[in-house]
Amino acid sequence: MDRMTEQELTDDVVARFGNTPDERLREVMQALVRHLHAFAREVRLTDDEWMAGIQFLTATGQISDNVRQEFILLSDTFGLSMIVDMINHSSDTAGVTEPTVLGPFYVPGSPERGFGESMIEFEDDGEESIVSGRVLSADGTPIAGAVIDVWQNSANQFYAVQQPDVQPPTNLRGIYRSDDEGHYAIRTIRPTPYPIPADGPVGAMLVATARHPMRPAHLHVKASAPGFRSVATHVFDNRSEFLDSDPVFGVKDSLIVEFNPGDDGLLHCEVDFVLDPS
Amino acid sequence: MDRMTEQELTDDVVARFGNTPDERLREVMQALVRHLHAFAREVRLTDDEWMAGIQFLTATGQISDNVRQEFILLSDTFGLSMIVDMINHSSDTAGVTEPTVLGPFYVPGSPERGFGESMIEFEDDGEESIVSGRVLSADGTPIAGAVIDVWQNSANQFYAVQQPDVQPPTNLRGIYRSDDEGHYAIRTIRPTPYPIPADGPVGAMLVATARHPMRPAHLHVKASAPGFRSVATHVFDNRSEFLDSDPVFGVKDSLIVEFNPGDDGLLHCEVDFVLDPS
Repeated sequence: MDRMTEQELTDDVVARFGNTPDERLREVMQALVRHLHAFAREVRLTDDEWMAGIQFLTATGQISDNVRQEFILLSDTFGLSMIVDMINHSSDTAGVTEPTVLGPFYVPGSPERGFGESMIEFEDDGEESIVSGRVLSADGTPIAGAVIDVWQNSANQFYAVQQPDVQPPTNLRGIYRSDDEGHYAIRTIRPTPYPIPADGPVGAMLVATARHPMRPAHLHVKASAPGFRSVATHVFDNRSEFLDSDPVFGVKDSLIVEFNPGDDGLLHCEVDFVLDPS
Repeated sequence: MDRMTEQELTDDVVARFGNTPDERLREVMQALVRHLHAFAREVRLTDDEWMAGIQFLTATGQISDNVRQEFILLSDTFGLSMIVDMINHSSDTAGVTEPTVLGPFYVPGSPERGFGESMIEFEDDGEESIVSGRVLSADGTPIAGAVIDVWQNSANQFYAVQQPDVQPPTNLRGIYRSDDEGHYAIRTIRPTPYPIPADGPVGAMLVATARHPMRPAHLHVKASAPGFRSVATHVFDNRSEFLDSDPVFGVKDSLIVEFNPGDDGLLHCEVDFVLDPS
């Protein structure tokens, strides 16, 4: 009697998912089986490695709770979140602002801030800065009344949402709007690097693979306007450490900008957000 | 400025694992990234599907505990456990007994049973049977003193280890030895189908993909002898339901046998175990 081959087993498992009533679920499950088996077969996964994987995934689920989501962190540190982001949110239109990961620290309902108004509500040693520019359509037309939803961490490394007993809840976040010529202006601090949570299974994985947990300095921005596809992106400081080794792979060249000292004693950073008509 | 492509992102993530000090860990992680990204890119994974996956994996970790291991069950139902078993335990030698999944119900230290002694210690409505045959080397030479470690479920569907308050702990398990001509004989009941645990995330996955949780009837056997590679396998009853749809993909044609009535009022099943010299 012929022995079953590995390929026959893979084919059998793929076929078993063939009765899945939902066509899209069927497609996703069958592809997942093929790629998962291809991985195990390519590396000749050992019993011990398989068990280490089982234990790693179990620990990743068990450390997660309402606040901490270690599987999202795992997805981020494997670049999976960025791939999904590119698949779903990239534009084919030239010049449109590139998206990047939303991250876990977005809080909806930030306070409305006036043109150039400060969103600093907590004293740290951050360098005061003006981030400004225009919101434009892909053809260069200014977009009036666009919404710029901004959030960033304090110079103490934490976002306000991580320190409810230390920072005011609306520190360093705000909703700005572009004026009639598409201009916007945000008064804030220069962003600083900070570590992703590294005391769990994902942190252990970073150590074992000689990676560090420090994200390069950035502001988060969600830019949107009626009639345009909104974009969730980052503004990275070109003098930040870690730009070449962001643990969540969020850096894209087009998102890196410069903070320069101005005559007013503040740093100034100029960045336009270009939206795709929807 | 050129937009980053999906392939560039995948390459970047693979390269980031390139500093992993342990060579084997580096190989495994880089392959995992390639296959995981290839999956997401092939199916064009949506934001909602990604989040459903995050939530499924989190629930799978959180339902697991010291007794229940839902990630192993997930691996089993994706055929991954069987692939790993084939990678690590298949023999290239013709005629050697094929391995299959160990399963979660193996308990070491079963009682020694004499030749043909019964391992039935609990009354259920199982049909009494003799399972017998020989333990052989791949060249047909009988192996004397081989160890046959056997375990199976009761006709009430449960293994003794699952019902500490109902069944004696050593019901339907035992260690048998082959005699000088390699013969062994086990007195037991004919095995019956039973469901894998289906009240968690894996059960929900089976429902969504129109699969059932019933394993076809089988005995578990670990056969070993000094100087030979041991094998963990199953003996499947050829009249069992579900042979074509084992939820954990453990069935191989060569492991299916027949239970036939004998003059002694018992069922008889003949099966040889053929071991590979190590």
